[in-house]
Formats: sequence, C-alpha cells, structure tokens
Amino acid sequence: MINVILHGANGRMGKVLQEIIADQENMTVAAGIDRETFAADFPTFQSLDECDVSADVVIDFSHYTAVPAVLDYCVGKQLPVVIATTGLNEDTKAYLAEASKKTAVFFSFNMSLGINLLAKAIREITPLLEDNFNIEIVEKHHNQKKDSPSGTALLLADAVNDAVQEKKTYIYGRHDNDLANPLSELGIHAVRGGTIPGEHTVIYAGPDEVIELNHLALSRNVFASGAVKAAKYISTKTIGLYNMEQLIDEK
Amino acid sequence: MINVILHGANGRMGKVLQEIIADQENMTVAAGIDRETFAADFPTFQSLDECDVSADVVIDFSHYTAVPAVLDYCVGKQLPVVIATTGLNEDTKAYLAEASKKTAVFFSFNMSLGINLLAKAIREITPLLEDNFNIEIVEKHHNQKKDSPSGTALLLADAVNDAVQEKKTYIYGRHDNDLANPLSELGIHAVRGGTIPGEHTVIYAGPDEVIELNHLALSRNVFASGAVKAAKYISTKTIGLYNMEQLIDEK
Amino acid sequence: MINVILHGANGRMGKVLQEIIADQENMTVAAGIDRETFAADFPTFQSLDECDVSADVVIDFSHYTAVPAVLDYCVGKQLPVVIATTGLNEDTKAYLAEASKKTAVFFSFNMSLGINLLAKAIREITPLLEDNFNIEIVEKHHNQKKDSPSGTALLLADAVNDAVQEKKTYIYGRHDNDLANPLSELGIHAVRGGTIPGEHTVIYAGPDEVIELNHLALSRNVFASGAVKAAKYISTKTIGLYNMEQLIDEK
Amino acid sequence: MINVILHGANGRMGKVLQEIIADQENMTVAAGIDRETFAADFPTFQSLDECDVSADVVIDFSHYTAVPAVLDYCVGKQLPVVIATTGLNEDTKAYLAEASKKTAVFFSFNMSLGINLLAKAIREITPLLEDNFNIEIVEKHHNQKKDSPSGTALLLADAVNDAVQEKKTYIYGRHDNDLANPLSELGIHAVRGGTIPGEHTVIYAGPDEVIELNHLALSRNVFASGAVKAAKYISTKTIGLYNMEQLIDEK
Repeated sequence: MINVILHGANGRMGKVLQEIIADQENMTVAAGIDRETFAADFPTFQSLDECDVSADVVIDFSHYTAVPAVLDYCVGKQLPVVIATTGLNEDTKAYLAEASKKTAVFFSFNMSLGINLLAKAIREITPLLEDNFNIEIVEKHHNQKKDSPSGTALLLADAVNDAVQEKKTYIYGRHDNDLANPLSELGIHAVRGGTIPGEHTVIYAGPDEVIELNHLALSRNVFASGAVKAAKYISTKTIGLYNMEQLIDEK
Repeated sequence: MINVILHGANGRMGKVLQEIIADQENMTVAAGIDRETFAADFPTFQSLDECDVSADVVIDFSHYTAVPAVLDYCVGKQLPVVIATTGLNEDTKAYLAEASKKTAVFFSFNMSLGINLLAKAIREITPLLEDNFNIEIVEKHHNQKKDSPSGTALLLADAVNDAVQEKKTYIYGRHDNDLANPLSELGIHAVRGGTIPGEHTVIYAGPDEVIELNHLALSRNVFASGAVKAAKYISTKTIGLYNMEQLIDEK
Repeated sequence: MINVILHGANGRMGKVLQEIIADQENMTVAAGIDRETFAADFPTFQSLDECDVSADVVIDFSHYTAVPAVLDYCVGKQLPVVIATTGLNEDTKAYLAEASKKTAVFFSFNMSLGINLLAKAIREITPLLEDNFNIEIVEKHHNQKKDSPSGTALLLADAVNDAVQEKKTYIYGRHDNDLANPLSELGIHAVRGGTIPGEHTVIYAGPDEVIELNHLALSRNVFASGAVKAAKYISTKTIGLYNMEQLIDEK
Repeated sequence: MINVILHGANGRMGKVLQEIIADQENMTVAAGIDRETFAADFPTFQSLDECDVSADVVIDFSHYTAVPAVLDYCVGKQLPVVIATTGLNEDTKAYLAEASKKTAVFFSFNMSLGINLLAKAIREITPLLEDNFNIEIVEKHHNQKKDSPSGTALLLADAVNDAVQEKKTYIYGRHDNDLANPLSELGIHAVRGGTIPGEHTVIYAGPDEVIELNHLALSRNVFASGAVKAAKYISTKTIGLYNMEQLIDEK
C-alpha cells in the first residue's frame, strides 16, 4: 500500500486526485494539506510543516510559489515527490534540480499519458521527415488561460527540435507579405476560446502529404491520473530527477 | 452556347479552365490570350487588343497588373467579365468598381463554391453565438505562399464581423502572459507547410461545446470551376458588380 | 422570475441543472423531484404526484418510462414542460404529440445550441451541394453508449434529407468490393471509445473540395444549458409542440 | 546513376514517375513499357519481353494481372523490382513471395512515406495504450473507389494488432442497440465522397483524452515518390522481400 501526502488536497485538482486515489487498490491518502481547513476521512493540515504523518510519496498540486517549501520538506524527510504544479519559473526549476540530488523528484511539463506518447511519436518520426516537411503546432485552450503558447506546446516543439539536425526557430504567428524560409521556422499557433481543456496538434506538411498528431484532453482529470501513475513509479526511488518520458520508456 | 474569351489562357489556371470548359455542354472557348504564343484548337492572341473575336463573356486568370486593361477592353466591348485573378491592390479594386458601372463585373476574393457556402453558414449561425462563443480562424497553405493570412481567411473573418453587433479586432498570433478579453478579438492563425492547396477552419468555442466549419481545397482546380459558374451567371447581365454571395443566393 | 419544477433533480443532469439555474438571474428552482430523498434548499418530493408547489414550467431529465406521467401532470396543471430525457420510444413520442395539443411541450432529440445550429447550417448549404457532393456523417461517443448511431447523428442526417430533392438511403458501414452509387447513399459511421461526450461531423465531399461541419461536446452540461434556454422560451406558451429549431429561428 | 525500367510507363502513375525521376540527380529512365505506343525521350516497348535494355531496377505501376509476368522477367534477368501496383490477390502475393527467394522484391500495401511513418508511430505507442484505450480507424476516399475498407486502413489495423497482446476483431460499421465490449473490437469506418485522394485517421480514445494520428494524401503522387525511394533502396539488393517498414528502419 502506497501512502500519499496530498499537498493542495482541497483545490480543484486535489479533489480529483482524492477520487482517483480512492479507486486505486494499492494506494491511499495518508494526509491532506490545504491552506483552508476542510472535511475529509484522512488527517488534514493547513501547512506541510504541521504534518508528521509517515508516508511513501508526496503529490503537489498547489501553486508554483509553494513548490520550494514542498521540496525542502521532502528532502528533509527523504520522501519522493511528484511536482504536478504548473507555471514554475526558472528559479523554481533550478531549485527542483538541486533537490533531486537529495531525494527523488518527478516533474513533467504535462502529466498526461497521451501528451507524452505524442512526444514519443514525435521523437520516432521527425528524423525521417526533417529534409522536406514543414513542422507546425496548433494548440487550443479555454479563454481564461493566461499564457500563450501553452507549456505543453513548447514541450512538443522541443521534442521536435531535439529530433532534428537543423534546429528550428519558434515563431508565434504570421502577418506579412514576405516569404521566410519556413523549413527553418516552427510556427506555434495559440487558439483561445470557450472552455476547451486543451488540444494540441503537431502538423508535418510535405510534398503531397500531411501527417497530423493530435491530442485532445476532455477534462483536466488526465493530469491527476498522470500524477497518480507518477507517484507509483517514483515511490520506490531514492534520488534523481524523473519525468514522464522515463516512466513511458520503462513500461 | 456561351462563348468565352480566356485571358491568361496558357497559365496554370488557364489550362485547367480549358479542360473544364471543354466538359461543359453549353460553353466553348472563343479565343485565348496569353503573352507567349501557344497551340490550341481555338484562335489565340498575345494581347487582348488584337482579339476581335465576338464573345459572350471574358474570364481573366492573369496577373493583377493586367486587370485594368482587361476591364477597359470589356467596358469598350460591353462584355461581361469574371476577374478571377488574385492579389488585387486597392487601386485596382477601385478601378474594378468604376468599370462595374459600365459593364457587368464579377469578382470574389475566393472563387470556390465551398468557401462561399462556408461564408453563408457563418452569416447564419454567428448572430446566435456572439454572446458567449469565441471565434477564431486557422488557415493552412503551402510553404511558397507569400501573404499571411490568406485573403480567404480575411473574407471569412469579415463574414463573421458583418454578422456580429460588437465588431472584433483581428489578431495574428499570441505570445504573451496577460489575458486580453478574447471575445473582442478574432485570432487568425496562418499555418504554412508542404504543398497544401488551402484549408480554412472557423472555430466557435463556447461553454462546453465547440463548432468548427472547415473547408479543404484538394487542388486549385476548384477556383477554375467557380470561375466557370460565375461566367455562366454573369453572361446575361449588362451592368453591376457581382460576387459569389449573390450567385449562391439566387440559386 | 421563472419558477421551475425539476423532475429528476438529483440525477447526474439534474445536479448540473441545479447549478446552471442558480446562476440565472430570472430563474429559480421551485421544487425538485427524485425517487430517492436528497438534501436541497428547495422543497423536494419523491413523486410528482406529491408536488403541489406552484410553478411556471417543468424540466424533465429522468427516464423515458417516466415521461408519460410527467406529461399527464403537466396537462392536468396546464404547465409548459421541457422533455430533455433521451431514448424515447415511438409510443412515448406519440403520447408527447398528443399532450402538446393540451399544453406547451418542448422536445428536441438534442438539446445543445451547437448541434441545432449545425442543423441550421445544413439546411442552408445542402441544397447548393446536392448535385455533385457526397454527404456522410461520422459521430464519436464514449464506449458505454448502447445505441448506434446516435439519435443526434440521425437528427443531422434527417436535416440533410429534408434539404435535398433526391432522398438518400442511410447506410451504417461499408465492407465490400462493389461500388454502389454513393450520391444516393448517406453513410453514418459510429466510432466508439473512451469517455468522448459526443462529436458529430457532417462531410460534404465534392470535386476537389471538402466541407466539414463539426460539433464537439466537451461535457454533457451542454444539454442542461439547452434545457434552461428551452424552459425560458416555453414558459410563456400555452399549447403546442416546440423544438430547438423554432427557438433558434425566433431569436 | 540508377537506370530504371518503368513498367506501366504511360499510365497515370507512370507519367508522374517520369516527372519525379527526371528531377532526381542519380536516377534515369532506361526504358518504358506500356501496352499502347507513346512518345518519350527514352526507348519504349509494348511488352517487357521485347525490352533488352540493361538496367538496375524495375518499377511496376501497372495492373495486378500483369505482376506475375513482371516478376518472371526480373527473376530471369536478376533485376531488383519494386511492385507498386495495388489490388494484388492472394495468389499474386504468394507468387511474389516465391520470386523474392530468387531476386530482390520490394512490396508495400501503401508506398507513401507518411503512411508508413504512421504505422511506425502506431507500433511505438499502442503497447502503452492497450489496457484502457479503444482504437478505431476512419478512412476517407473518392467515390469511385471500389473496395472498402482501403488496403491501407487494413495495413494500419494490422499494425495495431501486431502491437497488442489481446488481438482485436475488425468490424466495419455499427448499427445496433446492444453494447459489445469495444476493447476487443477495432472499428474501421470507410467514408466515400468526391475526389478525396485518401485520408486515414487512427483514433485512441481513453479516459478523458483522445489521441489521433492522421494522414492526408493531397494527391496520388505520394505513391510515385515512395516508389522512387524504394527503387533507390532496393537497387543494391540481390535477394529477399523488402518493404517500407525496413526502408524506414534502416534510415
């Protein structure tokens, strides 16, 4: 039985995590942390510092400003930790890399299985298309999303660029009358509207044929499901930085 | 039998027009004009001025710089004319409007039936979605296309804007971290790659549902087919400016 | 203020309706009916017969077997009623038509605004494409859906057939080596998988161009939103059978 | 310089091949065979038997009934051969396997690079999705296509089935009211309309997310391009049966 401390337990994703963990045979919530008190059938705390419950892994779905404190706690307790919070800045990412030298840290820009399999497919087919296919990404998200393009679109663009010899320059829209050489460019187009949870399309357009790899998230639950997979994977590790790519490759 | 003078008869689109007209029961090529001499089973001329063949309509698929001379010829001969050439600048469009006071002139930014039916669907459904649906356009074209976005994408965006109370501002990409109010914006995204003849998607994204209207051109032949439809439609007119919207509405 | 009796108030859709009605300025739940008792801040009953609360309209999201009793109640009380329950058999539909002679009854095979706007677009563009475009429908739903194709796919197919001169025969898959004349056929293809709430695509494929009209439901909440729109629309009617097509046309 | 004998040189695909080979730096047409005489700047013959031109490889784009004679010729001359003809029956496939024991034979159900990269992506990601994703295929072709589903759809379905532990049963449409267990089924849906050269979509639908791998052929030229790649690949082989999967893996 894997005992989980849920940090951000009463937020939107925290509640989804509670449900998904309740459905697992070999996993249970040992404690839940949230700034506001809330009712639950497991011990709850308003701060991680107050939590002295023993556990096997921490899942964090809180706010990027809270991440360093979570990492400190996990290093101190020698607990593996899944950072599923998004919007981390460069400082926090550096902090996370440091922490991973002292305990096991799992972090991916996108926690869904599907997106990470798309990245895997990109790594496989891009080298054979580099010579004469243009590659572009279109992503669609709800109209409340504050950052454009999505971190996931950049994750996929980076997967393309890791697979090609001639690195591409990312551009974020076209509005002109002069033809640049598009083989050296990778256009990323951010569509915003309604309540779309997230859709990403990688387009390979070549002579007389077009390949499109498409991922549609029907709800944000996919990220919670991925975090649970990650928690199972990392619960037996002691040190190092892990991500979805490794999880998939070891399957 | 409708006798057609083909201006730009030996260009890429002119050749397609020759084939399509040959398949029509009630239409024939009376003369073909092209700068270079070419073999044909109809009279050919290197300049419209040399052409004294009597005809019912002129179809022009040449270059935007040649359009004023074509209009002069048609005004002089009182011939209806289909201007299927693209890339007209504002001066030429004004010239075209003037000419239409003296003879019948047909002009649409996009000559395909499909695109114009998409515009019709836009006019019908947009007013009912204006309140709480974001509207965006994604277009895809081959990597040699020099202008972004396509004239057709702008035609569709204008169809949206004609149908709403609160006019939208067109934007051509997103790359930032601040949320603007997207209901006031209409994003137009230009994907470029390979040999794609042209694809346009109008996206209506609202609360928990998304409508997409999509048009895919499989070859540029669709523009020639539209020009033939337009020639039939205009051959009996004497004066005025006509376009695909009217042609469709009268059907 | 429109007072609503919610029949099926504690079911999956009933709960969504409660939330959506709470967000309306001019609508409130007057009473909720569900077989099992449940907690709510409005009067609740286990059967409609027990409900003596005065109201302006009834919304039914229950089970097709319960629909006749709902109609009897609304006829007796002279209450307008929105039947949003799906899977009605022919007998129940006939019963519904009879009841609409005595009170106002709203019924549509699909309650979402988007699907009904797709049907509107179909009615507008199909007559101009009948001659040389093949028309097909692809629909996708979750893997627990018991009926294929969806009632909504049939609604859209009927919208096509109402708009053409030569009625088409519906077929539900192709697996053969002989070419039938597809212009006389309308293929409906039912994809089943995962948790897809519902996607419908109407494809018009003609010479060198393809138009696709696509609707994606991101959650089943869209049906509850439509029912609330319908309740507002019908609350002032006294008699007759109404549907989404009329609601849209009167807007 | 690779010298090619083109069998079916004056057919629709043969003409495309002539153009593509003319654009290659290290390849030339040594002779062309077609039943009817035709003009060309290389030697032409009405039958392969008459052709005594020395060459490095044969490309066959003719008719499935002609394939055995082509194989006999290549075995006799010890020439590598690319069979790009489609619609081969089981007997001809067996004949082809036999011939490949005596000379190098290249054969793929689909000669485009894109489709074969889609198959590669399928092989990579399917094993990780088998447990809880439904897999379905939708293909679209022009309304003159005689066989449903396409051979390429079956190629992709077989790629799925090769990658899973529990083999799936192919079904070709759904029209019923009882839920079968779709995880054991793989639905293949054949849309027919207009002049669509070919589109194939492999759909993975799971809990809250959907992956789609899509290939669109914009013209049948892609098959000719693939045949040229295959001819280069096989021109140095002496014996054995080769296909696009191997060609891709060796790149």
